[in-house]
Amino acid sequence: MNNQLIQKLFLKLQEETPLIHHITNNVTINDCANATLAIGGSPVMAATMAEADEMASQSDALVINFGTINDQMFEAMVIAAKAANHKGIPVIFDPVGVGATKYRTEKAVEFIQTIQVSIIRGNASEVYSLMGKRAKTRGVDTGEIDMTAIDLAKEAAQHFNAIIVISGRLDVIANENSIVQIDNGDVLLTRVTGTGCMTASLIASFAAVADDWYYAAIAGMATMSLAGELAGQKLSDSEGMGTFRIKLMDEISKMNAATWIEGVNLNEA
Amino acid sequence: MNNQLIQKLFLKLQEETPLIHHITNNVTINDCANATLAIGGSPVMAATMAEADEMASQSDALVINFGTINDQMFEAMVIAAKAANHKGIPVIFDPVGVGATKYRTEKAVEFIQTIQVSIIRGNASEVYSLMGKRAKTRGVDTGEIDMTAIDLAKEAAQHFNAIIVISGRLDVIANENSIVQIDNGDVLLTRVTGTGCMTASLIASFAAVADDWYYAAIAGMATMSLAGELAGQKLSDSEGMGTFRIKLMDEISKMNAATWIEGVNLNEA
Amino acid sequence: MNNQLIQKLFLKLQEETPLIHHITNNVTINDCANATLAIGGSPVMAATMAEADEMASQSDALVINFGTINDQMFEAMVIAAKAANHKGIPVIFDPVGVGATKYRTEKAVEFIQTIQVSIIRGNASEVYSLMGKRAKTRGVDTGEIDMTAIDLAKEAAQHFNAIIVISGRLDVIANENSIVQIDNGDVLLTRVTGTGCMTASLIASFAAVADDWYYAAIAGMATMSLAGELAGQKLSDSEGMGTFRIKLMDEISKMNAATWIEGVNLNEA
Repeated sequence: MNNQLIQKLFLKLQEETPLIHHITNNVTINDCANATLAIGGSPVMAATMAEADEMASQSDALVINFGTINDQMFEAMVIAAKAANHKGIPVIFDPVGVGATKYRTEKAVEFIQTIQVSIIRGNASEVYSLMGKRAKTRGVDTGEIDMTAIDLAKEAAQHFNAIIVISGRLDVIANENSIVQIDNGDVLLTRVTGTGCMTASLIASFAAVADDWYYAAIAGMATMSLAGELAGQKLSDSEGMGTFRIKLMDEISKMNAATWIEGVNLNEA
Repeated sequence: MNNQLIQKLFLKLQEETPLIHHITNNVTINDCANATLAIGGSPVMAATMAEADEMASQSDALVINFGTINDQMFEAMVIAAKAANHKGIPVIFDPVGVGATKYRTEKAVEFIQTIQVSIIRGNASEVYSLMGKRAKTRGVDTGEIDMTAIDLAKEAAQHFNAIIVISGRLDVIANENSIVQIDNGDVLLTRVTGTGCMTASLIASFAAVADDWYYAAIAGMATMSLAGELAGQKLSDSEGMGTFRIKLMDEISKMNAATWIEGVNLNEA
Repeated sequence: MNNQLIQKLFLKLQEETPLIHHITNNVTINDCANATLAIGGSPVMAATMAEADEMASQSDALVINFGTINDQMFEAMVIAAKAANHKGIPVIFDPVGVGATKYRTEKAVEFIQTIQVSIIRGNASEVYSLMGKRAKTRGVDTGEIDMTAIDLAKEAAQHFNAIIVISGRLDVIANENSIVQIDNGDVLLTRVTGTGCMTASLIASFAAVADDWYYAAIAGMATMSLAGELAGQKLSDSEGMGTFRIKLMDEISKMNAATWIEGVNLNEA
């Protein structure tokens, strides 16, 4: 990913303020709205079937997050995502907790069979479960799986014909032809809720203005990991997780192409 | 608005801790509860039909916010608002995103035809859409309209027999006879979610203890814009939107009559 | 409560990262997730009936919070709590606003008659209302009752065969045989939403790893009150409620056995 490309993505975000529609969980919905604003998008979070088509049709990207999925929310998600597919805008799917319960896994598989998802963002065990494999997922944590994140991302990219983003100590982003790893982040990112969900919002914001969604996925994932790293560096010993969360949002809102290029450690995997 | 009046409003808020019932969206509901507490009210946020009447009947003001409206929430809103009308407490209506979808606009028009709304707080295109005019609203952002906020506020105040609060670079507050502008604020207020929703909570808190709700609307709107201005002044270059949000809540909680009188720029429009 | 016991609780929390399932209100759900993470648990917040049994069955504790109770949420709560009873994990019940409306009180009584609740955490008027007595509850605030918190806790512990935690200026924790008071805290804890809800999450996290849930209740309640006290001490005059909330979460995340033993004022009542 060359420097001109990331500069162009930040510039277009600033110029276009894309509308990022979310149908998402009620735990981190505020974080997602603020992360979208922080990076330069405009969030909208309507969740009823009655306006799902119309709201998605005027948006520039759609985020679907399974964190607190239920039947009604699922119906709205399918309607919104069909409208997004029809309009040709990116659909970012965050299969939170998939693998933890039968209901969640079945709904996720149904979703991905009904909709052409553009980008899937999850942890390794969620993506693994989405492929019909059995991971030991516990709640919404990462469970253990029997393959590397790199192999999983490659296989999933082929299987779903989608861009795959797997968050972890090293983040992995793959499409059908390419794969990269990001070596940024801070362990504290695992101790606040919503960092995964917010990553999907960042990816969606970049995807809304990108020609190639693969680079948008890299841009968004790396923005979160680098922001977490910078926030961690600025945290003093007298501060804790409350302050880390605030500094994380500070760093997202201050992120620009120069900081990104300077800080992101991106490697071919 | 003379100084004695604003002093009295802050004093009564402190003495009475009014109960402010909200039926509101799940994006900024936590912000609204904390803003209500910060200014001196006591928030309650029940949303089921089963207790809408009883909860509204024991409250001192009611906030109705359309951010994530759906059919069930709408039914609870109507029941609660009828109880509020019956009891004679102020109903503050925040038509978030009205104009963006047909569903949202129809429900808002139905609400305003069923309920005597006391105060309407929105951005210009939301209020414009509520009057049956067609604005280009995109998501929950302000769209373009063909009249000034001042003319719109005057017309809407007559049309709805209500107090109108239009947030913007200059905030406008009108009733059927008077209109004022507030020249405070900070552009960063547009880069965090929930500042409009929290404004409605502040207005409701003042209205719950006010003899004339027009002055409560001015007091609440100016509190938000001044708090945003003060928060912006105290933000250093190394800080970003996470810290701005925290400083905004700090300033709301520290607001008092002296700070308000010193800082608010209020002009006849 | 001796020092070895509290040391063991913190150690086991760190070693086991227990899964704490919540079915809770949409006002403070994010705060509860972050508080759980801050103390060392892993939160999960699914709320649909379709997975209530399966999610509770893989958890280590269950928090049931009535803040924004409705019929659908209640059904999921009962299913999840039956699974928790069956598995033998602790059920922490937070009867938010019970006494304020007939609906809320009836549902709470139904819940407590159906489920063996392990720990009840509320303010005095909520616990009083739960016993079928009539308190003047207004919204979600504490109302006036005609007995002391100590007498109420003792009576409720017998009546419900459960551990009772009553938050207040002095917190009271009782089981059928013992009762203690905690003399920590800060009045600012009453001016942010969610401190009660987060206390239930802290108690649940300790209970998930405790042999005796009575000591877990003391550990969790005292963690919140001490964290509030420490946050208040570190708040400067130029700061307000926004910063207090952040410092509160900081202190929860930095809490350990040494700080707890040093700071908590625990007395036999």
